[in-house]
Amino acid sequence: MYAVKSTLPDDTLKVVGEALQGALADLIDLSLVAKQTHWNVIGPRFRSVHLQLDDVVNSARAHSDTVAERAAALGLSPDGRAATVAHTTSIKTAPESWQKDDQAVQTLVDALGAVVERNRERMDAVGKVDSVTEDIFIQFVKDLEKHHWMFQAENNG
Amino acid sequence: MYAVKSTLPDDTLKVVGEALQGALADLIDLSLVAKQTHWNVIGPRFRSVHLQLDDVVNSARAHSDTVAERAAALGLSPDGRAATVAHTTSIKTAPESWQKDDQAVQTLVDALGAVVERNRERMDAVGKVDSVTEDIFIQFVKDLEKHHWMFQAENNG
Amino acid sequence: MYAVKSTLPDDTLKVVGEALQGALADLIDLSLVAKQTHWNVIGPRFRSVHLQLDDVVNSARAHSDTVAERAAALGLSPDGRAATVAHTTSIKTAPESWQKDDQAVQTLVDALGAVVERNRERMDAVGKVDSVTEDIFIQFVKDLEKHHWMFQAENNG
Amino acid sequence: MYAVKSTLPDDTLKVVGEALQGALADLIDLSLVAKQTHWNVIGPRFRSVHLQLDDVVNSARAHSDTVAERAAALGLSPDGRAATVAHTTSIKTAPESWQKDDQAVQTLVDALGAVVERNRERMDAVGKVDSVTEDIFIQFVKDLEKHHWMFQAENNG
Amino acid sequence: MYAVKSTLPDDTLKVVGEALQGALADLIDLSLVAKQTHWNVIGPRFRSVHLQLDDVVNSARAHSDTVAERAAALGLSPDGRAATVAHTTSIKTAPESWQKDDQAVQTLVDALGAVVERNRERMDAVGKVDSVTEDIFIQFVKDLEKHHWMFQAENNG
Amino acid sequence: MYAVKSTLPDDTLKVVGEALQGALADLIDLSLVAKQTHWNVIGPRFRSVHLQLDDVVNSARAHSDTVAERAAALGLSPDGRAATVAHTTSIKTAPESWQKDDQAVQTLVDALGAVVERNRERMDAVGKVDSVTEDIFIQFVKDLEKHHWMFQAENNG
Amino acid sequence: MYAVKSTLPDDTLKVVGEALQGALADLIDLSLVAKQTHWNVIGPRFRSVHLQLDDVVNSARAHSDTVAERAAALGLSPDGRAATVAHTTSIKTAPESWQKDDQAVQTLVDALGAVVERNRERMDAVGKVDSVTEDIFIQFVKDLEKHHWMFQAENNG
Amino acid sequence: MYAVKSTLPDDTLKVVGEALQGALADLIDLSLVAKQTHWNVIGPRFRSVHLQLDDVVNSARAHSDTVAERAAALGLSPDGRAATVAHTTSIKTAPESWQKDDQAVQTLVDALGAVVERNRERMDAVGKVDSVTEDIFIQFVKDLEKHHWMFQAENNG
Amino acid sequence: MYAVKSTLPDDTLKVVGEALQGALADLIDLSLVAKQTHWNVIGPRFRSVHLQLDDVVNSARAHSDTVAERAAALGLSPDGRAATVAHTTSIKTAPESWQKDDQAVQTLVDALGAVVERNRERMDAVGKVDSVTEDIFIQFVKDLEKHHWMFQAENNG
Amino acid sequence: MYAVKSTLPDDTLKVVGEALQGALADLIDLSLVAKQTHWNVIGPRFRSVHLQLDDVVNSARAHSDTVAERAAALGLSPDGRAATVAHTTSIKTAPESWQKDDQAVQTLVDALGAVVERNRERMDAVGKVDSVTEDIFIQFVKDLEKHHWMFQAENNG
Amino acid sequence: MYAVKSTLPDDTLKVVGEALQGALADLIDLSLVAKQTHWNVIGPRFRSVHLQLDDVVNSARAHSDTVAERAAALGLSPDGRAATVAHTTSIKTAPESWQKDDQAVQTLVDALGAVVERNRERMDAVGKVDSVTEDIFIQFVKDLEKHHWMFQAENNG
Amino acid sequence: MYAVKSTLPDDTLKVVGEALQGALADLIDLSLVAKQTHWNVIGPRFRSVHLQLDDVVNSARAHSDTVAERAAALGLSPDGRAATVAHTTSIKTAPESWQKDDQAVQTLVDALGAVVERNRERMDAVGKVDSVTEDIFIQFVKDLEKHHWMFQAENNG
Repeated sequence: MYAVKSTLPDDTLKVVGEALQGALADLIDLSLVAKQTHWNVIGPRFRSVHLQLDDVVNSARAHSDTVAERAAALGLSPDGRAATVAHTTSIKTAPESWQKDDQAVQTLVDALGAVVERNRERMDAVGKVDSVTEDIFIQFVKDLEKHHWMFQAENNG
Repeated sequence: MYAVKSTLPDDTLKVVGEALQGALADLIDLSLVAKQTHWNVIGPRFRSVHLQLDDVVNSARAHSDTVAERAAALGLSPDGRAATVAHTTSIKTAPESWQKDDQAVQTLVDALGAVVERNRERMDAVGKVDSVTEDIFIQFVKDLEKHHWMFQAENNG
Repeated sequence: MYAVKSTLPDDTLKVVGEALQGALADLIDLSLVAKQTHWNVIGPRFRSVHLQLDDVVNSARAHSDTVAERAAALGLSPDGRAATVAHTTSIKTAPESWQKDDQAVQTLVDALGAVVERNRERMDAVGKVDSVTEDIFIQFVKDLEKHHWMFQAENNG
Repeated sequence: MYAVKSTLPDDTLKVVGEALQGALADLIDLSLVAKQTHWNVIGPRFRSVHLQLDDVVNSARAHSDTVAERAAALGLSPDGRAATVAHTTSIKTAPESWQKDDQAVQTLVDALGAVVERNRERMDAVGKVDSVTEDIFIQFVKDLEKHHWMFQAENNG
Repeated sequence: MYAVKSTLPDDTLKVVGEALQGALADLIDLSLVAKQTHWNVIGPRFRSVHLQLDDVVNSARAHSDTVAERAAALGLSPDGRAATVAHTTSIKTAPESWQKDDQAVQTLVDALGAVVERNRERMDAVGKVDSVTEDIFIQFVKDLEKHHWMFQAENNG
Repeated sequence: MYAVKSTLPDDTLKVVGEALQGALADLIDLSLVAKQTHWNVIGPRFRSVHLQLDDVVNSARAHSDTVAERAAALGLSPDGRAATVAHTTSIKTAPESWQKDDQAVQTLVDALGAVVERNRERMDAVGKVDSVTEDIFIQFVKDLEKHHWMFQAENNG
Repeated sequence: MYAVKSTLPDDTLKVVGEALQGALADLIDLSLVAKQTHWNVIGPRFRSVHLQLDDVVNSARAHSDTVAERAAALGLSPDGRAATVAHTTSIKTAPESWQKDDQAVQTLVDALGAVVERNRERMDAVGKVDSVTEDIFIQFVKDLEKHHWMFQAENNG
Repeated sequence: MYAVKSTLPDDTLKVVGEALQGALADLIDLSLVAKQTHWNVIGPRFRSVHLQLDDVVNSARAHSDTVAERAAALGLSPDGRAATVAHTTSIKTAPESWQKDDQAVQTLVDALGAVVERNRERMDAVGKVDSVTEDIFIQFVKDLEKHHWMFQAENNG
Repeated sequence: MYAVKSTLPDDTLKVVGEALQGALADLIDLSLVAKQTHWNVIGPRFRSVHLQLDDVVNSARAHSDTVAERAAALGLSPDGRAATVAHTTSIKTAPESWQKDDQAVQTLVDALGAVVERNRERMDAVGKVDSVTEDIFIQFVKDLEKHHWMFQAENNG
Repeated sequence: MYAVKSTLPDDTLKVVGEALQGALADLIDLSLVAKQTHWNVIGPRFRSVHLQLDDVVNSARAHSDTVAERAAALGLSPDGRAATVAHTTSIKTAPESWQKDDQAVQTLVDALGAVVERNRERMDAVGKVDSVTEDIFIQFVKDLEKHHWMFQAENNG
Repeated sequence: MYAVKSTLPDDTLKVVGEALQGALADLIDLSLVAKQTHWNVIGPRFRSVHLQLDDVVNSARAHSDTVAERAAALGLSPDGRAATVAHTTSIKTAPESWQKDDQAVQTLVDALGAVVERNRERMDAVGKVDSVTEDIFIQFVKDLEKHHWMFQAENNG
Repeated sequence: MYAVKSTLPDDTLKVVGEALQGALADLIDLSLVAKQTHWNVIGPRFRSVHLQLDDVVNSARAHSDTVAERAAALGLSPDGRAATVAHTTSIKTAPESWQKDDQAVQTLVDALGAVVERNRERMDAVGKVDSVTEDIFIQFVKDLEKHHWMFQAENNG
C-alpha cells in the first residue's frame, strides 16, 4: 500500500489532516462563490466589483493548491471534488441569480468572514503540533483578512 | 426588473441558455476533477501526468469563464455554485483517494469523453439558432478533443 | 488595372464587400465615440468609466484593422476616411460636451446596441456566401455583445 | 454647472482652447489617413510603407490622447467626433481607393506637412500664454517633423 | 490495435481525414517553399521580401501543427514525411537557384493561390460534416488569404 | 570642501536652489498624504479611489527623485528628511483616521491644488534663469494638473 | 460608525495596533532617511552606496504598505503623515547636507540598528497574541537585519 | 577585530550558528547530489526525472544562499567549501556512475528524507531562541517536504 | 550574372558548398522526421516524448537556417525543396503510422546517429579549408550529439 | 537636388545646423572616450567605474542619434565620421593606456564638463530661433549634467 | 607597474595584440560608417536600408566590446579613440552628405568587404597561436560575412 | 550494459573523458569558492565585490553543466560529488572565515589563474582529437580569462 514516509507522529498527522481537508473545501468553495458573484453582479459599481472579485478568485485558487499539496506531502489524500465541497464548506450557499452591487459585496463579506473564523480555529490547533503547516495557514488567513477588510470598507462609510 | 436588451428572440434564448448552463457545470466540474487527480496521482509517470493535468485545469477554467460571460451577455444569469455543479455535471464522480498513474489517465479519458459527447449535442442545437454562441462551443470542444486524444495516447500503444 | 485574384465569384464579392465596408465605418466610429466619451465623462464613477471606455477603444481599433485587411485580401479597397465614417456609421451622433457618468454609460449602451444589431444582419448575409468572412463578424460581434452587457449592467440593479 | 478650477485667466483659456481643439482634429484625422493608406497601398515597396504607416498611426493616436486630456485638464471639453474631424481637419481628403506606393508616400508628405505647418502657428500662439501647453505642442511637432523627413527621404534621391 | 474513441461516425471520419492529410502536405510544403525563397531572393527589395517570407514560414508551421494534431485527436495518423509532401503537395515545384525579388514575390503569389484554392474545396466538404474541423480550415485559409493579398499588392501598382 | 563645478553663476544657483528645495518637500509630502488616504479611504468607491491614489504616489515619488538629483547635479544638497517635510510643505495636514470616499477625493483636490499653485510660481522664477531646470518643473506640474483635474472631475457632475 | 468586524478580542487589538503604528512610522522614516542619504552621499564609493541605498528604500516602502494595510484589515486606522513620522520614529535625525561615503554607511548602520532593535520588542509582544501579525514583523525584521549586516560589512574589515 | 553588532545574546547565537552551518552544508550537498543524478540518470523516464532534478537543484541553491546570508547577518562566518560539505553533510554518498531511473528517484527520496529529518531537529532548537531564524528553516523544510512527496509518489503506486 | 564577392578561392568554395548543401538536406529532414514522430507517438510515455521531440524540431530548424544563410553568404544557392530533401537525406525513411513510445525513441536514436556520423565527416573536410564554416558544423553537431545521448538514455537502463 | 521642405527660414537653419553638427561630434566622441576608459580603468573601484561608464556610453549614443536625426529632419546632412569627430570635438584627447580609477573618473569629469559648457552656449543660440530644437539640447544637457555630478561626487568627499 | 598575469608567452601576445588592436579600430569605424549612412540615406528604399544599417551598427558595437575586453584580459591596453580609429581603419572614408539608397548599399558592401578581407588574414595568424582568441575572430567574421551577403543581394538581381 | 553509441574511437574517448572530468571538478569548486567568498567578504568595497562574485558563480555553474552533459553525450559518466570535487580540484583551499575585500579579490585571482592554466593544457590535448569538445573548452576558458582580468584590475592601479 502506498504511503509517504513522514517524520511526523500519527496523532499529529490526524490533527493536521483534518485541518488541511477542511481548509481545502473552504478555499475551493470561496473560489466558486466569488466567480458566481463576478458573473452575476449588476449596478453602478459593476466594473469595480467585477474586477475585485477576480482578485479573490486568484487568491483562493493559489492557496487551495498549496493546501492540497501540503496534505499530499504528508501522505494524506486531499479531496476537492464538487460534492465534498458542497457538503462540507463553511460558506452559506450564495444567492441565486443577479445580485445588486451592494448585495454582491455583502455576499463576499459573509463568505470571507465565515472562512476566516473557521480557519483561525484550525490554525490554532495546527500551531500546537506542526509549525511548517501552521505557516501555510498564516499565509492564507492573512490574505483573506485583507480581502475581508476591503469588502467591508466598500459597504461602510 | 433587470434585463439585458438582446436582439435574439425568446425561443432562441431558451435553447442557447440551456446549452450554456449545461456547459458551464461540465467545465467547472472538469476543472475540479482534473485538480483532484493532479493532487492524488502516484506512480512512475507522476510528474508527467501531474503537469499535464494542470493544462486541462487551465483550459477548463478559461472556457468556463467565457461560457458564463456569454450567458450574462445575453441576459441569462449563469449558475456555477458547488451544489449546482455536483448535481448537473455530465462527469461521473472521480475516484476517492490516491490513483495510480494509468488509473488517473483513465479518469481523464472518461471525463473528457463524457463532456465532449454531451456538448457536441449542445453545439449542434445552438448552431441552428445563434452562430456567435456556436463559435464558443466550437472553440472549447476543439480544445477538449485534443486533450482527449493526448490522454488516450498515453494509455495505448 | 490592379486586381487581387480571388477564388470567390463576383456576386459573393459584392455581398461580402458591402458588409465589410459597413462594418469598417461602424467600428471606426465606435472607437471615436468611445474616445470622445472617455475624455468628456464626469461624475463619481469617472475613473471606472474612463478606464472601461479605453477597453472598448482597443477592441474597436483591433477589429477595424482585421475587417479592413480582410477586404483588401479579397481585392476590395476599404474606405476608412473621416467623411465616409461620418456619413455611413450606424451610430447616432454622440452628445456634445461633458457627459455625466450615467449618461456616458447610456451613450455606449446605445452605440454598441446599434452596431451589434446592424452587424448581426450583415453576419447572416455573409454567412450564406463565405464562412471565412463570417468568422470575422462572429469574433467582433461576440466581443461587442460582451461590452454591451457590461455597460447595461452598470445602469441597472 | 460643471467646471474645472483652473489657475489660468479666461483669455488665455480661449487661445489655448482653440489651439488644442484644432490640434485634436488634425491628429485624429492624421491617424485615419495613415490607416487608410496602410490598407490601400500597393506596389513593390508595399511592406516597407505598410509598416512605416503604422508608426505614424501610433504616434498620432498617442498625441491626440495627450492633447484631449490637456484640454479636459483645463476645463475645456474636447470634441473628437467623426463629423467634427471631417469638417475642421487641416489635411486635404485622402485619395479614394488603391494608391501606388510613391503616391502613398506623397499622401503622407502632404498630410504631415499640412499638420506641422498649421500647428507650428498654434504652438507659437500658445507659447505666449502657457508654457505647459506649449510643451505638449513641442513634443508632437518634433515627432511629426521626424516622420515628415522620413517620408520625404523616400520620395527623393 | 490502437484507436482513439471518437464520437464521429466512420463516413465523417473518412471525409475529414482526407481533407486534413491533404492540408498537412500543403502547409508543410508551403513552409519549405517560403524558406527556399527566403534564402534565394536577390534584388533591391531583398530585405523587405526576406523578412516577409519568414512571416509566411511561421504561419505555415503553426497551422500544420494544428492540422496534424486535429487528425491525431480524431484517431487518424498524420503523414508529414518529406517524400509524402513532395508527391502530394498542391504547389508547383519552386524555381531552382537565385530568384530576383519580383520573381520571388510571384513564386509566393502562385504557391499561396494554389493552396488557398485547393483548401477552400476541402473546407466546404468538411463543413458539411464537422463544424469543429471546419473551424480549423477557416482559421488557416483566412491567414493565407491575407498573405496572398500582401504579395499580390507588392507586384501591382 | 566639496563642490560640484557648475557653469551657472551664483545668483542663478540661489534662485534655482530655493525652488528645487521647496518642490522637493512638497512632492515628498504629496506622496505621504496620498498613501495616508490610500489606506484610510472607505465607502462605495473604495477600490476605484484606492487604486487612483497609488497613481499619485508613483508620480510624486518619481518626480521627487528627479528634483533632488537635479539639485545635487548643480552642487546643492537636497533635504528630504521627515521634519523638514513636515515644517515646509505647502499642503495642509491631512485629516486623521478614516475618510469617506468623497472626503478622500477632496483631500487630494486640496493637496494637489496647493502644490500646483505654489510650484507654478517657482516655475516662473526659475524659467527666467535656467531653462534646463524649468523643464523639470514643467514636467511635474503638467502631471499634477492632470491628477488635479481627475480628482475634481470625480466630485462634480 | 465605521468598524471592520474582526474576530480578535479588544485587548489583542490594542497590543497589535500600537505595534503596527510604531512600525509604520519607523519604516516610512527609514525610507526617507535612505533617500536623503542616496542624494547626499559623496566620495569614491559614491555609485556603489548610491545604488545600495535604493535597495533599502524599496524594501522599506514595500514593508510599510504591508504594515499599514494589516492595520486597516484589523479595523485600525494607520497614520503615516509627515508630522507623525517625524515625532514618533525610532531613528535619530539624519545628518544635514553632504555625507562622505563611510559616514553615509554609518548613518544606515545606526538607522537600521535602531529600527531592528525597537521592532524585535514589538514582534515579541505581538507574537503572544496574534501569529498572523507576528509573521509580518518576522518578514520585515529578517529583511532589515540582512541590510544591517551588509552596511556593517562595508565599514569593517 | 571584525564583528557585526547583533541584539541577540551569545548563547542564542551559539545555538543558531550551529543550526545554520549544519543546514548550509546539507543544502549545498543536496544541490550537488541532485545535479550528479541529473547527469547520470538513464531509463524510460529519463527526461521527466532529468527535469524534476533541476527543480531540486534550484530550490537547494536558493535556500543555501538565504541560510548563509542569515548567518553572516548575525555575525557568524558561513563555511560552504567543498571539503566542509563532504565531511559534514547529512546525506549518504550518492552512487557512482549511471543510475537507472527508479534508482535515481530512490537516491533523491533518501537524500531529501535525511535532510528533512535532521533539519526538523534544528528547526525545533532554533525555534526556542529566535523566531526570525526559525522562519528561514520553516520555509526550506516546507519546500523540501514537497519535493520529498513528489519523488516518493514516483516510486509507488 | 549575380555573384556574391567572396574572398575564398574556388576549390575551397566547392568543398564548403557540398558540405553545406548536404547538411541542409539532413537538418530539414530531421525536423520533418521529428515532427512526424511528435504526432504519431503513443504509449505511457506519450507526453514526455511528445515534448522532447519538439526540442529536436526547434534545434533542427534553427541550425538549418544558419547553414543555408552561410551558403548564401558565400555565394552558393541553397536548395531546401521537398524533393531535394527526400532524395538526398542521410536519414532512412521514418516508419508509417502510429509508433509506440520506445519505437519512437528508437526512430530518433537512428536518425540522429545517421546525421551526426555523416556530418562529422563533412566537418573534418570543411575544417581543413575554412574555420568559419567549420564553427557552424561544430555548433550543430554538438547540439545533435546531446539530443542523441538523451534519446539513448531513454531506451537503456 | 534633394531637399527636405522645412518651414523654418534660412538664417534659422544656419544657426540650428551649426549647433546640431557641433553637438553630434561632441556626443559621438563622448561615447568613444567613455568606452576607452571603460576598457582601460584599473584599481580598487574597477567594477563600479566600469559599469558607470557604460551608462554614459548609452546616454551619449542615444542622444547622438536624436541630434543627427533632428538635423536630417530639417534637411541638413549630419556628419558623424571618425575624422570629423577627431578634428572638431570639444573634448581633449583621452589619456593613452591604462588609467587608475581616480584618473579615469577625472577623465570623465573633464570630458563631460567640456561638452556641457560648449553645448549650453549652443542651446542658448538655438533657443532664440527654434524651440523644438532647443528642447533636444535641453534633454541631453540635463542628462550630461547629471552624469557630471555623479563623477564629481566620486572624486570628492 | 600594472600587468595582468597571462599564461601566454610573449611572442604569442605580440601577434594576438596586433590583431586585436587592428580589429578594434575596424569594428568601431564600421559602426560609425554604418550610422553615418543610416542618417544620410535617401531614396525609395529609405526605410528598409535605414533599419538594416542599424543591424550592422549593433553587430559592430557588440563585437568591438568583445574584442577590446579580450585584449584587456590578456594584459594589452586597447585603444579605441577617435584619432586612432581615423588613422588605422581598413575602411575607406565614407562619402560626404546625402547618399542615394543604392549608393548607400554600395558603401556598406565596400566597407564590409574591406573589414572581412583584412580580418581573415588576422584570424589565420591568430589561429596558429591562440585558439581562444581565434574563436572571437571566427564569431565576428561569420556575422560580417552574413551582412556582406545581404547588402550584395540588394544591389544585384 | 548501458552504453551510448559514440562515433569517436576509444583512445579519443579516453583523452576527452579525462579532460572533461577534470574540468568538471574545477568548475564546481570554482562555484563553491566564489560563493564562499561572496558570503565572507568584508570591507569598503563589500557590495561591489559581493555582486561581482555572483557573476563568477553563475558562469561556473552554467559551464559545469555544459561540461558534464558533454561527457554524458559521449557515454562517459560525469562525477560531480562533493568528495570528488574536494580531492581533485586544481584550486587551493579557500581561506577560512571573513576575508577583507582585497584578500577576497586575491582569492579569486588565484583560483581563476589555477583553473585557466590547468584547462588550457586540457584544451590543447582535446583539440588534437575532437574539435567539438575543444569548442566547449574554448568557451569557458574565454569567460574565465575575462573574469581573471577583472579581478586583477581591481587589485592593481
